[in-house]
Amino acid sequence: MQTVIDKTIGITRHLTLNRPKQRNAISLQMVDELLQKLSEAEEDQQVRALVLRGAEHNFCAGGDIVDMLNAQQGASDGENNAFFHLNRRFGELMQRFNRTPLVVIAVLEGAVMGGGFGLACSADITIADHSCRFALPETRLGIPPAQIAPFVVARVGLSQARRLALSGVKVKAQQALEIGLIHQLLDDTEALEGALQEHLTAINACAPGALAITKQILMDAARVSDENALGQLLDGAAKQFSRAIQGHEGREGARAFLEKRSPEWQH
Amino acid sequence: MQTVIDKTIGITRHLTLNRPKQRNAISLQMVDELLQKLSEAEEDQQVRALVLRGAEHNFCAGGDIVDMLNAQQGASDGENNAFFHLNRRFGELMQRFNRTPLVVIAVLEGAVMGGGFGLACSADITIADHSCRFALPETRLGIPPAQIAPFVVARVGLSQARRLALSGVKVKAQQALEIGLIHQLLDDTEALEGALQEHLTAINACAPGALAITKQILMDAARVSDENALGQLLDGAAKQFSRAIQGHEGREGARAFLEKRSPEWQH
Amino acid sequence: MQTVIDKTIGITRHLTLNRPKQRNAISLQMVDELLQKLSEAEEDQQVRALVLRGAEHNFCAGGDIVDMLNAQQGASDGENNAFFHLNRRFGELMQRFNRTPLVVIAVLEGAVMGGGFGLACSADITIADHSCRFALPETRLGIPPAQIAPFVVARVGLSQARRLALSGVKVKAQQALEIGLIHQLLDDTEALEGALQEHLTAINACAPGALAITKQILMDAARVSDENALGQLLDGAAKQFSRAIQGHEGREGARAFLEKRSPEWQH
Repeated sequence: MQTVIDKTIGITRHLTLNRPKQRNAISLQMVDELLQKLSEAEEDQQVRALVLRGAEHNFCAGGDIVDMLNAQQGASDGENNAFFHLNRRFGELMQRFNRTPLVVIAVLEGAVMGGGFGLACSADITIADHSCRFALPETRLGIPPAQIAPFVVARVGLSQARRLALSGVKVKAQQALEIGLIHQLLDDTEALEGALQEHLTAINACAPGALAITKQILMDAARVSDENALGQLLDGAAKQFSRAIQGHEGREGARAFLEKRSPEWQH
Repeated sequence: MQTVIDKTIGITRHLTLNRPKQRNAISLQMVDELLQKLSEAEEDQQVRALVLRGAEHNFCAGGDIVDMLNAQQGASDGENNAFFHLNRRFGELMQRFNRTPLVVIAVLEGAVMGGGFGLACSADITIADHSCRFALPETRLGIPPAQIAPFVVARVGLSQARRLALSGVKVKAQQALEIGLIHQLLDDTEALEGALQEHLTAINACAPGALAITKQILMDAARVSDENALGQLLDGAAKQFSRAIQGHEGREGARAFLEKRSPEWQH
Repeated sequence: MQTVIDKTIGITRHLTLNRPKQRNAISLQMVDELLQKLSEAEEDQQVRALVLRGAEHNFCAGGDIVDMLNAQQGASDGENNAFFHLNRRFGELMQRFNRTPLVVIAVLEGAVMGGGFGLACSADITIADHSCRFALPETRLGIPPAQIAPFVVARVGLSQARRLALSGVKVKAQQALEIGLIHQLLDDTEALEGALQEHLTAINACAPGALAITKQILMDAARVSDENALGQLLDGAAKQFSRAIQGHEGREGARAFLEKRSPEWQH
């Protein structure tokens, strides 16, 4: 029984969290399947974009309680690292989705809680409709939102992250837009699908190799810690620029521009 | 004569800056009293939240001019570090309020200027009404906003911090909300009190130990400088998670959830 | 033939990108002229503010295609570093405008694309009217937005930077305001000029030495990587504060405040 459904359409791999009765809560099995399917998508030369969503109008309600109880059992059996591994493995998922060279779009509906909130923060483009409810309820259960913390901070900033994580309150879609948690808010499911298609069309116009380099430079740029490191980053970026513009994509991009036609990567 | 009034109600220590004739300008005495009262609150096992506000409908108009003139006197007497210590001591206050494991709520009215602006940025949750006026007027007096700079940057981002500090202009409450300087804007004093109670009720539902760990992880997460450091942070966070879920709060949180009752920490 | 027009009025050096037929696209010559004119402005004791804008109602459409083609020629002649130097030289411009002790105001109209988008992000205060269109279209040409990446991230945050750079979509002025790309949005050219004058009046009220120190502290504060570094930054800032308040500007600022008059630096 798969917990993630995947489908490829054109340049896009669609991954759907599929435990609708549990509002797509993330189980250990789901983490493994997501990591596996991300690797497959990255290896597929056709795929440039990854769409992440949940089945039956919920994105994801957080971590799975049953896994927690199993880990509890493991812990009482003497396997005192069961909780550590359960938690850290989800952090690996966060790191991998955050850093993948693919462009990730998260399509949010309904519950976006805890680990689901974190996963939404790993996407490059995050769109939602008014049905969404966001929260970091972990401390109400006596635990910290541990693995998602850096990704939430990167998405909404430290100030909003502190406010949300230290009160556990629910946030509606309009406020999520205002604080930058989502990038676009749509009225309903139909509008959400339309917006998704527009984003995919935009990504389709971008050269895949240039997208991957750009994502990596942006990620590194966010972590520059002094002027010296900034100089090094810019030196490296200039090398990437030089290689790109003289490479296949750069030459095709310039030709297409001068010939006023679409570049060959645009389907 | 105390410059800070304190009062404990339930889980909350209320601290009120009390120099209303000086619009609660921060004197050296006030810095010492605030540090003392913060330590007391942190040592009180009942206290989980700290509410910071100003007497008579002003939050705080900045640093105290009289202290400046006294330091001037000290400086001309040969004590050339008087200004350094005056300034740096306020920075200690900023660091301590920013890092306290308690959840800090700032309730803002009227003047929120200079050092008062900085103090507002150290809180986890900042609410205000329409009477507020915000500014960083230091450079108009020929001095830099020195100790508050990192906390202002952490709150509103470098871009807005540059704009505000390099022009000294006043900002109204609505714009303060839009740039993330405050988290919630209320219509009047009554609505402000109502919102404060709602935030305290939310904090009351969260486990105090989990709150403290969460705050620490978020603070550290904001400073991660490369992928290696991120991995280390996530390892440490997974250990904290493992400890929390197997500890008293985590077990009580799981039981309360399964038994559909409030956890014992919720009063 | 100059590509940058300069003019000094009072405390302000005005620089106008002047290649209107190319929508003020940045050529290598323009980069050199901008760097030269920035140095001159920094050495002029009268100048405290720098206004950056484009001729004929466009700010800047990005990098110049002709320079790219010339570099292409150089590269095919065996000079394989031509693209590296072209790109990195623009990064130097970004670093210098971002770090100048002068207060930089960018006045935006029409096209604000690619390198022009980056340049707008280096300003301390950025104002625009509704004619503006913003985009990072580089990947559509098969190349990364390499040198501007850290400055875009510093301006709009990593999350919006990822969204914009990984899709190349156009953003209108209203959305640019909402995501913090610009600080103020005006209705038309007349309102834009009025707002510029207000900002210059505000800067005129601030002591130039204090402005320069403040800018430097804020820049450094944005890069603090742990509590230890924070303490060092605050120590240094307290020294700067002590020096400033005992220096010419600090003493004049205090006297002017007590005597209820404008300080001597305010013209």
